[in-house]
Amino acid sequence: MSSASGSYILPVELSKSYRLLNHGPTVLVSARHAGESNAMAAAWACALDYTPAKLTVVIDKATKTRQLMEQSGMFVIQVPTRAQARLVHHVGTRSALKEPGKIESAGVEWFEQAGFDVPLVAGCSAWMVCRLVPEPHNQAAYDLFIGEIVGAWADSRVFRDGHWLFEDAPDELRSLHYIAGGHFYAIGDAVTVDVASATAKA
Amino acid sequence: MSSASGSYILPVELSKSYRLLNHGPTVLVSARHAGESNAMAAAWACALDYTPAKLTVVIDKATKTRQLMEQSGMFVIQVPTRAQARLVHHVGTRSALKEPGKIESAGVEWFEQAGFDVPLVAGCSAWMVCRLVPEPHNQAAYDLFIGEIVGAWADSRVFRDGHWLFEDAPDELRSLHYIAGGHFYAIGDAVTVDVASATAKA
Repeated sequence: MSSASGSYILPVELSKSYRLLNHGPTVLVSARHAGESNAMAAAWACALDYTPAKLTVVIDKATKTRQLMEQSGMFVIQVPTRAQARLVHHVGTRSALKEPGKIESAGVEWFEQAGFDVPLVAGCSAWMVCRLVPEPHNQAAYDLFIGEIVGAWADSRVFRDGHWLFEDAPDELRSLHYIAGGHFYAIGDAVTVDVASATAKA
Repeated sequence: MSSASGSYILPVELSKSYRLLNHGPTVLVSARHAGESNAMAAAWACALDYTPAKLTVVIDKATKTRQLMEQSGMFVIQVPTRAQARLVHHVGTRSALKEPGKIESAGVEWFEQAGFDVPLVAGCSAWMVCRLVPEPHNQAAYDLFIGEIVGAWADSRVFRDGHWLFEDAPDELRSLHYIAGGHFYAIGDAVTVDVASATAKA
C-alpha cells in the first residue's frame, strides 16, 4: 500500500460510517473507469441514511470525475486532512478535462482496498467506497448523486471504535471545512453535552 | 426582536448564502403552520446550488417539524453556536410529537424577519429562509428535502462580507459539528491555501 498511513487503516462498521461525514468535512471524490482514475474536491457531500448507509454528493457536470462515476457506477468519498489542504485545493480548482496531468501535479497517490476496483487517495483520514444509486432526475436537475456505502475505512489514529479522536490525534489529521477562495477551517475543540437525561441520536 | 444578537444581524447576499453551510455545520430546522412553530436539529444539511441558492436537508418522517414544513411549504435552516450546544442537543433528541413543551423546555426563543412568516431561532449565527421545492420521490424514498433559499441573514460579528470570521469572533459563536452521543466539535483554526496560482471555486 502506498499510503504512509496505511498501517493505521482499519475497517469502519457500515452502520457507523455516517459518522465519518456527520461533522461536514470537505471531501475528495475519486473514481476509475477503464483504467483511468481521477479525483476532485467537493464541499457538498452529506450523509443520507444509516442502513443501508448512504450519502449524497453534488458533482458539477463539467468534471472528469463525474464521467468516471457515471461510467463505472462506483466512486469513493474520502476525508482529507489538514496536511492535505494544498492537494485538496489543487484538485478542487483544476479539471482533468483541461489539465490531464492534474493528479500528478497535485501529488495524489492512489491505493486500493482488496475487492474494490476504485482508487483511494493516500493520506486521507477516512474512505467510503460507494455504489452509485441511479437517480437520473436528481443527477440531471441538481447534479446530486446518491451513493450506497459498500466499504468504509479510517485511520485509527484519528477515528476508532466509531468515534473521531481529533482532540487526541496529531493536528495535521484534523478534517478540513472549505469556505471559498482558498479559505478552509480545520475542525476544532470537542464540545460534549451530558446526555444522561436524553436519548441521543445523530 | 427577541434575539440578543438581533442588533448584529445583517442580510446575506443569496448568491453567497451557500457559504453559511459550506463548512458543514450542524443546523437547526424550524417551521410554522397555522400558528404552530417547532424546531429540530439536523446534522444532514448541505448546500446544493449557487443561483438560485438551494440546499438539501434530511428530515425523519417521525418529526413535527417535517409536518409543519410539508403543510406550510416553508422552513428555516439556521446555524447554531457553541453557546447553544445544549439547546441543539435538546431539540435534536426530543420530539414535539411526544413532548409538546419541547420548545419551551429547550429555551428556544423565536424572532421573525419582515416579510417571512417563519420562526427563526434567536441566538444562532446565520439563518436561511427556504421555500420547499417539492420532490415527492426524494421526500418519500430518502427523507431528503430541497429548499430554495429566499432570504438569508447572519450575525455580522462572525459572518461579514461573504466570509466567516470565526478566528476573530467570540469563541461561543463558533459553529457546531455533531458526531453522536452528545459529542460535537466546534469549528477550529483557519487554514488558507495561497490561490495566487489557482482559480479558486467553492
